[in-house]
Amino acid sequence: MDDAIAAQVRSIFDKANFLQHLGIQLTATGEGACETTLTVEDRHLQQHGFVHAGVIATMADHTAGGAARAASGERDVITIEFKINFLRPASARKLTCRGKVLRAGKTVIVAESEVFAINDSESKLIAKLTETLAVLD
Amino acid sequence: MDDAIAAQVRSIFDKANFLQHLGIQLTATGEGACETTLTVEDRHLQQHGFVHAGVIATMADHTAGGAARAASGERDVITIEFKINFLRPASARKLTCRGKVLRAGKTVIVAESEVFAINDSESKLIAKLTETLAVLD
Amino acid sequence: MDDAIAAQVRSIFDKANFLQHLGIQLTATGEGACETTLTVEDRHLQQHGFVHAGVIATMADHTAGGAARAASGERDVITIEFKINFLRPASARKLTCRGKVLRAGKTVIVAESEVFAINDSESKLIAKLTETLAVLD
Amino acid sequence: MDDAIAAQVRSIFDKANFLQHLGIQLTATGEGACETTLTVEDRHLQQHGFVHAGVIATMADHTAGGAARAASGERDVITIEFKINFLRPASARKLTCRGKVLRAGKTVIVAESEVFAINDSESKLIAKLTETLAVLD
Repeated sequence: MDDAIAAQVRSIFDKANFLQHLGIQLTATGEGACETTLTVEDRHLQQHGFVHAGVIATMADHTAGGAARAASGERDVITIEFKINFLRPASARKLTCRGKVLRAGKTVIVAESEVFAINDSESKLIAKLTETLAVLD
Repeated sequence: MDDAIAAQVRSIFDKANFLQHLGIQLTATGEGACETTLTVEDRHLQQHGFVHAGVIATMADHTAGGAARAASGERDVITIEFKINFLRPASARKLTCRGKVLRAGKTVIVAESEVFAINDSESKLIAKLTETLAVLD
Repeated sequence: MDDAIAAQVRSIFDKANFLQHLGIQLTATGEGACETTLTVEDRHLQQHGFVHAGVIATMADHTAGGAARAASGERDVITIEFKINFLRPASARKLTCRGKVLRAGKTVIVAESEVFAINDSESKLIAKLTETLAVLD
Repeated sequence: MDDAIAAQVRSIFDKANFLQHLGIQLTATGEGACETTLTVEDRHLQQHGFVHAGVIATMADHTAGGAARAASGERDVITIEFKINFLRPASARKLTCRGKVLRAGKTVIVAESEVFAINDSESKLIAKLTETLAVLD
């Protein structure tokens, strides 16, 4: 792992109150790539006992944002839009997410991420996000 | 406000731990419509001091879901995908959201929602979401 | 209708081969707004006899783009992403579309559009699009 | 290539007037997978001389739809929404597209597709789509 990239990505996790509050943790970074994990708690659930779409979207957004930040050098990034499909209800007690950059332009970066539910040794894709980020001056 | 509709919508807010945890409150319901509010706290912020995209997305998703629930009669609904555009950074201490149904089919409902930042007497559109929900058996 | 705005919007319709080829016509422009119409022909249909999603998406995209161009002054715009929901099958012989700007920034514009099927005197919403455009230098 | 799957997918290409009209051709199918190609003509272009977003969206939508049809057995599918990001301007004279299913449920299928511009021996990713399809009774 390149130290400069790792530090850039870590900065947008450490300073983001809401990520800390939810308990989403950065686990790996790479060139245009980022991985996170979340231990699910009761406070993360919705009315049917599954992880709330908002929790999954937050994780998918910020992990895609981490991947973008790993590709934006000195400059910071901010999400301007995203789209997420929920593929299966999330009933696991652990989620992981992997983000990667699809295209890094000078002013706009497009990234995607996939969220997996981890049960025992099994990993199931539960959501997929695509997002556009603006590169800040 | 129709009591039966209001009770349906309220049920998906009262039982959703994550909504309670964030502090998002249901303020009004109508035919295929729903309104919510959030008093912003420091825990809701991201690394630049604005409300985190995940908080806004959660509010927009659940409010659109409330609008859909107001149109689905006896049957419950679940989000299968959404798309959200962030139009302005959210620096206000109060957010409101209005959701409405665009099309209520037997198995699929499409709804949209708009999130507003409230500063003094001014209200600014900060995000717009469109989402698809499945109607459960 | 402001003549300068109308000329800007018209330019992105007149020079777009594919729009001409499909038969999509500009019918009105305004501040951050644009309207178009299409007379449906057999070549526009898909395998079930409805208007193809690609035709509807093209119309919705270019009309939202026209609305953005009506808000971008001297500078041109280009679509960087869009999302469209298809609300009803389109079996009409005439479609109209209305686009409007949600937010016009210096480098990014967000616009939306709605497509209607016109049967006799009835107009039904069949699709809704939201899109992000980059403002070119 | 399984003959039954190939025949299912081929049926939604052969009967779709608009696909024939644009010149989009089915080149391969597999389990939950589909590939297409398009030779770009002047009629496909937009005002800057690039392939129109609507052409790319049509190709990406129908190819993802082909992948979904390859996973839906006896039952037909119809697009209910899609989202597409345009990653680079398309100036090539040949486009190819690969679609694959992310999740095939009983009533809803989620698929994605990638569009590539082919110049000489080089292939560049120019667009990525995610879509939801309803499985028809």
